[in-house]
Amino acid sequence: MAQTPLVTITTDFGLVDGYVGMMKGVVLNIAPNAQIVDISHEIAPQDVRRAAYVLYTAYPFFPPHAVHLVVVDPGVGSARRPIAFRTQSGSFVGPDNGVFSYVMAQESVEAMVELADLRYHLPGKRSYTFHGRDVFAPAAAYLATGVPMSALGPSVSDPVMFSPPYLEIADKRIAGEVWHVDHFGNVITSIGVLAWSEQDCLTLTPAFRGAGSMEQEAGGEGRETLRFGAGKAMVVVAGREVVGIHRSYAEVACSQVAVLVGSNGHLEIAVREGNAAERLGLGPGDEVVLRWG
Amino acid sequence: MAQTPLVTITTDFGLVDGYVGMMKGVVLNIAPNAQIVDISHEIAPQDVRRAAYVLYTAYPFFPPHAVHLVVVDPGVGSARRPIAFRTQSGSFVGPDNGVFSYVMAQESVEAMVELADLRYHLPGKRSYTFHGRDVFAPAAAYLATGVPMSALGPSVSDPVMFSPPYLEIADKRIAGEVWHVDHFGNVITSIGVLAWSEQDCLTLTPAFRGAGSMEQEAGGEGRETLRFGAGKAMVVVAGREVVGIHRSYAEVACSQVAVLVGSNGHLEIAVREGNAAERLGLGPGDEVVLRWG
Amino acid sequence: MAQTPLVTITTDFGLVDGYVGMMKGVVLNIAPNAQIVDISHEIAPQDVRRAAYVLYTAYPFFPPHAVHLVVVDPGVGSARRPIAFRTQSGSFVGPDNGVFSYVMAQESVEAMVELADLRYHLPGKRSYTFHGRDVFAPAAAYLATGVPMSALGPSVSDPVMFSPPYLEIADKRIAGEVWHVDHFGNVITSIGVLAWSEQDCLTLTPAFRGAGSMEQEAGGEGRETLRFGAGKAMVVVAGREVVGIHRSYAEVACSQVAVLVGSNGHLEIAVREGNAAERLGLGPGDEVVLRWG
Repeated sequence: MAQTPLVTITTDFGLVDGYVGMMKGVVLNIAPNAQIVDISHEIAPQDVRRAAYVLYTAYPFFPPHAVHLVVVDPGVGSARRPIAFRTQSGSFVGPDNGVFSYVMAQESVEAMVELADLRYHLPGKRSYTFHGRDVFAPAAAYLATGVPMSALGPSVSDPVMFSPPYLEIADKRIAGEVWHVDHFGNVITSIGVLAWSEQDCLTLTPAFRGAGSMEQEAGGEGRETLRFGAGKAMVVVAGREVVGIHRSYAEVACSQVAVLVGSNGHLEIAVREGNAAERLGLGPGDEVVLRWG
Repeated sequence: MAQTPLVTITTDFGLVDGYVGMMKGVVLNIAPNAQIVDISHEIAPQDVRRAAYVLYTAYPFFPPHAVHLVVVDPGVGSARRPIAFRTQSGSFVGPDNGVFSYVMAQESVEAMVELADLRYHLPGKRSYTFHGRDVFAPAAAYLATGVPMSALGPSVSDPVMFSPPYLEIADKRIAGEVWHVDHFGNVITSIGVLAWSEQDCLTLTPAFRGAGSMEQEAGGEGRETLRFGAGKAMVVVAGREVVGIHRSYAEVACSQVAVLVGSNGHLEIAVREGNAAERLGLGPGDEVVLRWG
Repeated sequence: MAQTPLVTITTDFGLVDGYVGMMKGVVLNIAPNAQIVDISHEIAPQDVRRAAYVLYTAYPFFPPHAVHLVVVDPGVGSARRPIAFRTQSGSFVGPDNGVFSYVMAQESVEAMVELADLRYHLPGKRSYTFHGRDVFAPAAAYLATGVPMSALGPSVSDPVMFSPPYLEIADKRIAGEVWHVDHFGNVITSIGVLAWSEQDCLTLTPAFRGAGSMEQEAGGEGRETLRFGAGKAMVVVAGREVVGIHRSYAEVACSQVAVLVGSNGHLEIAVREGNAAERLGLGPGDEVVLRWG
């Protein structure tokens, strides 16, 4: 039996209007048995970087036949290209505005096209203001049902890419930035990917190729792995110093500021059963420094 | 193979409580393989007109075997009838309180019934305050699995209908109203359905039969099509005049007030990467005038 | 044909981040054809009692092959056990922190285990801060596909249980508390389960075994059924007295405070087309007294 088509959707459309529903209707017209999974529709309007982050954290947990449809698209109707691409982890559909930067930095792109072939757009009702419904949803549905990517349009080789989040690695010191504040007020930083090894040691392997200044300073490939002790590491953030990196919220007292390895392997600042971002006044772009030794 | 049952749900229940989940459980007890799609659960409490608008924009994008379940029901427990009806575009289930007005104005109703047969209600747990769970969800599920509409109860021929949104067409002048403000603050008006034709001309075909005063003034059927130039058209709204109707947000500068043809064909006032409703202080019912020539 | 796997999800994760999406991806990797139904993701952060209430109201409406996954988990990473259990109404997966108290009080538990077997955790990416993704979602998916509960880990016989909500029954007087305030501002109390019988009589059968003080005072089993007239019953709440219990919002005038039997059989205080909790200043834990005769 063929695999059930699987489409995930990430937008800034909110849940009040029927926009997301319309896109799902379009998908189900083309792929009647599709499973559709919402990643988020509460991306702040036009916040392409936020959408890029959310997609980056979520896509690795889906099977590779999933098609990830992302519509945060302030340039709808402009010359920005509608694109689709495939990696070994999944397929992706959306505007060529950088929203796929973090995925592309992680993955080897096997094929990428511009969604130019009108036969794979929504027939009849095409608008200039809602490509999510008229261009992207049909493309995602066709890909999910097995239409080859090459049918959708000509090849693309120069997608728009953001720079990765700030990460600078020096001797026993890593400088990064606040990358995301989540629903709980947990502050997720660009300092990652961290992993626990034996003896309470942590390893850090930069999440992105060429991130930080390792290439220049160390002559490496930019993804060399560092190793340091978690207990004596110190994090400087919002004018305060926090000593030690914990494994879980439960290791610290309630209401205490703690530094952890978050669920996506990035350094996270949290307050147990509290809101760290509010407590410390932190938001995206604020500096975070990790020191040890 | 039979079609997979498809049920969409639109309510004012919000997403905090388990009300929507209960309805889905009821649907899946009756139609275990049903696909269920949320249109919106963030309709303002008891705002039947808002629900009617959201349904009107969304249902055309679903396949005709979809059953659209709408529960915005301030009159639950009163004499207002629970109904279901079918058109060539889909089936609909909900309270007879006007929520289906805009659909019925667009579509030829093939059959309409009152949900009177208790065999198709939720057995046992019936309440007087939650017909969404006890009456409407079971009816939608039974219809989705192929139970004929006539089994659910006696025929209905006089559903409650709202008047369509205000639209008055005179010589080179159309007066309408703000119909909806969406998640982005885009202001969608009753002036539609607009479509682009060649040479930057727009056509307007009134969305509803008998909308505006064309019948009286022009002696037509009320759905005659007008034609005018987009570039010189002027929109008067919130005490300001905006010249020109654009195709997309991308055609205007950031933060500029622009008039567009929205994704459902209605005249829309937007601010690129901004919130037009807040900027102009607009809400449902405010007047909008389009002039040309 | 085997049943389609069915998983419901209740969390405090909100809908902005991709956390819920990641859990769904994990489920679909294990159970590719699963149906996934959201109960709520808007439980207030760490509010285990709220989650317990929402689950209690929703699970009875799902078929018994449903697996109910609940992740409101302030103790993630601590010694609190991850558990799963099965009753004749369904299966349940989540932290052993009391979130299943109201279900367990209603149901006979057929089997309960600790999710200790690492073969049924997410391979590789295990974190200390997101057991929803790494432990609970895989367990729910495996159970939904038919893996026997006993495979997941050793038996548990002493789950954490909350006390039931306050309910004290005396002669012609029942004292209870506000248990939940819903999206509409309706105030749901611990006084239940109420059911209408003939002649406008109501019966009350305590929702929980041993709830109230009936065992001590009456020597009964704690679930004896009381009977009283609805029309003359008086409810004392927020310093005011309301006479009569109505069947539906529609029986009272707009904006009037009314007492009803809510959709889950609990005494409910509502304002027709208004917000009772705001109007009366009520919140969870506030006292409500019902008197009659």
